[in-house]
Amino acid sequence: MRDVFIVGVGQTPVGEHWDLGLRELGAQAIRRALDDAGAETVDALYVGNMMGGCLNGQENVATLLADAAGLLPAEAWKVEAACASGGAAVRAAALAVAAGAYDAALAVGIEKMTDGVPDAVTAGLATAADQDYEASHGFSFVGLSALLMRRYMHETGKEREAFAPFAVNAHENAAANPNAMFREAISADEFARCAVVANPIGILDAAPVCDGAAAVVVCAREALRPHHKPVRIAASAVATDTIALANRDDILTLAAAARSAARAYEAAKVAPRDIDLFEAHDAFTIITALSLEACGFAPRGGALDLAAKGCHRPGGCIPLSTFGGLKARGHPVGASGTYQIVEAALQLRGEAGVNQIAGAKRALAQSIGGHGSVAVTHVLEAS
Amino acid sequence: MRDVFIVGVGQTPVGEHWDLGLRELGAQAIRRALDDAGAETVDALYVGNMMGGCLNGQENVATLLADAAGLLPAEAWKVEAACASGGAAVRAAALAVAAGAYDAALAVGIEKMTDGVPDAVTAGLATAADQDYEASHGFSFVGLSALLMRRYMHETGKEREAFAPFAVNAHENAAANPNAMFREAISADEFARCAVVANPIGILDAAPVCDGAAAVVVCAREALRPHHKPVRIAASAVATDTIALANRDDILTLAAAARSAARAYEAAKVAPRDIDLFEAHDAFTIITALSLEACGFAPRGGALDLAAKGCHRPGGCIPLSTFGGLKARGHPVGASGTYQIVEAALQLRGEAGVNQIAGAKRALAQSIGGHGSVAVTHVLEAS
Repeated sequence: MRDVFIVGVGQTPVGEHWDLGLRELGAQAIRRALDDAGAETVDALYVGNMMGGCLNGQENVATLLADAAGLLPAEAWKVEAACASGGAAVRAAALAVAAGAYDAALAVGIEKMTDGVPDAVTAGLATAADQDYEASHGFSFVGLSALLMRRYMHETGKEREAFAPFAVNAHENAAANPNAMFREAISADEFARCAVVANPIGILDAAPVCDGAAAVVVCAREALRPHHKPVRIAASAVATDTIALANRDDILTLAAAARSAARAYEAAKVAPRDIDLFEAHDAFTIITALSLEACGFAPRGGALDLAAKGCHRPGGCIPLSTFGGLKARGHPVGASGTYQIVEAALQLRGEAGVNQIAGAKRALAQSIGGHGSVAVTHVLEAS
Repeated sequence: MRDVFIVGVGQTPVGEHWDLGLRELGAQAIRRALDDAGAETVDALYVGNMMGGCLNGQENVATLLADAAGLLPAEAWKVEAACASGGAAVRAAALAVAAGAYDAALAVGIEKMTDGVPDAVTAGLATAADQDYEASHGFSFVGLSALLMRRYMHETGKEREAFAPFAVNAHENAAANPNAMFREAISADEFARCAVVANPIGILDAAPVCDGAAAVVVCAREALRPHHKPVRIAASAVATDTIALANRDDILTLAAAARSAARAYEAAKVAPRDIDLFEAHDAFTIITALSLEACGFAPRGGALDLAAKGCHRPGGCIPLSTFGGLKARGHPVGASGTYQIVEAALQLRGEAGVNQIAGAKRALAQSIGGHGSVAVTHVLEAS
């Protein structure tokens, strides 16, 4: 396979974009990534998006964005892997370039959730779960996540308060990120006292409903130019697990996340100790903990102990959510995986400003769909 | 790019599958394609599907099918390009193998439309159009297609009856196809007298609402085995055009179809005269005509003259819809592009039975999404 490099990144602020539709939001991120790459256009566009059909009445989103961003007649299609769609779109773009189909391609993740009424968003998110055996029986996405968190607390003997460091760190890191939705700090005390969404998940365990788009331009070595600040995609790996939680031997092992991480480490010839920062899928604090364990940063049941030591803050042993993560930058679901990769690339380019992780040379980004039923893991390297 | 071959095909009957959900339907097609390839499993699955979210309440469809078909922990994600999703899924699988990510991969197209109430299906299909500028103003998918047909009749001076040969041929070819939805013949007279759906489109111009799944296993040359009957993917090309009809200079030129065909011919080093059969996107008779013209089989406005000469029947100059096409085999939208490729592969393997096009060595399959806003074109060759 040909080496593939990220040479352009672009993003919109995450928030409630009542004045922008999918086309305007997507085109902004695409044009910013092209500008960053110093390119006018690109011949292939892969769009990560989950709920365009359900919430915006718009499938064929890839054509819509190719049209809106002035990329016609580029190859364009949408990639959907539930909340991991944005990571999977980067995977698709990397495959197209690795195959030699194109020397450069663009991946954009986009989601516009605020167009939907709250019930529609809840129903839309539940389409990532098993409709026949979970959602149709009344389980919401957060409800299923609550089962995971309750079981984790039961097995480890931890209280909900022990999850606070993930959320506190995320908000702290978002403060200086102009693209973040929540830029105000929160305290562990506020975390403990927040409103309950689905017991034991509180509002401050959970990422928000929001809109956003993020894009990356990837290219082959032959297409690198002197003005580029390339970040190499050292590995890109996807794995799956049962869609229904009930079919798993152990619901506290995210097997797809573990498998995709193992494949990525192997392809990149690295181990967890070689990773300088981790953009984890912190949609809920429980998912952060399980992702850390799946990726080998903590033993089973041990993620909260690391968190308690401040291990995930800037300068810690494995910094997390360095621009605020899904929790505080925000989680426009089909875009989040692309935001992670944009942010990791900025870190590896040394362009993260006050959020810079000193000496960052290698980053891990993991995007998780469903309740760990699909996971996309990328290892990125400074070059 | 590495050469990629189709070595396994599988399909379910197209129809109203009230007794099967997405998981059962998809798993059947996948297992049949694996059996045909003589393989137990595969490490990557790309799923073409358009309306799982809207009609079945199920996104994350690729994980669902990987799970249902026993392929876990395979890489799996969904590909959506409106009604061209099934063709785009084959493109994704071919890219993964061409890149060297896998020696073999599986593409499955699936759609289960009968789960939706009629209004939901109409709204779901309209998500392939421009929601902001077309669908939200009341245009249905068939309504927009009717505009194309009316304009074509105006410019060419043809009557609706001149489109009959496409539908008559499709039904005739479906008669011996056990997987076809409509296996009864229709006459030109019945075509002329049929009920109107959206003037001038009649019920016999239009492909049906239905369920189905079709799958192909693709592999690299290194993975070919003596028992395989390989069909080479000589070209796989995607192109896009404006999503809204109003933004086109000429609505009777399907620029994306023409562009993707031109790219495919160039990559395969062939011309229209080298093609022995054409699986066209005959969702409406007008689209068949425009696709024939876009692919260089007829001059602009000339497709109906060829049809009148019987050119598209078996043994004619360019046989069409050899197993019934979208019109009579049926059009489960996200699956149709994969059905086309399954059928073309059977022709090139000489396994088409009474539908066999004598001496078929090279086939063209074109899958069109939206009103020509995206097109996926494959050239397949016997080997």
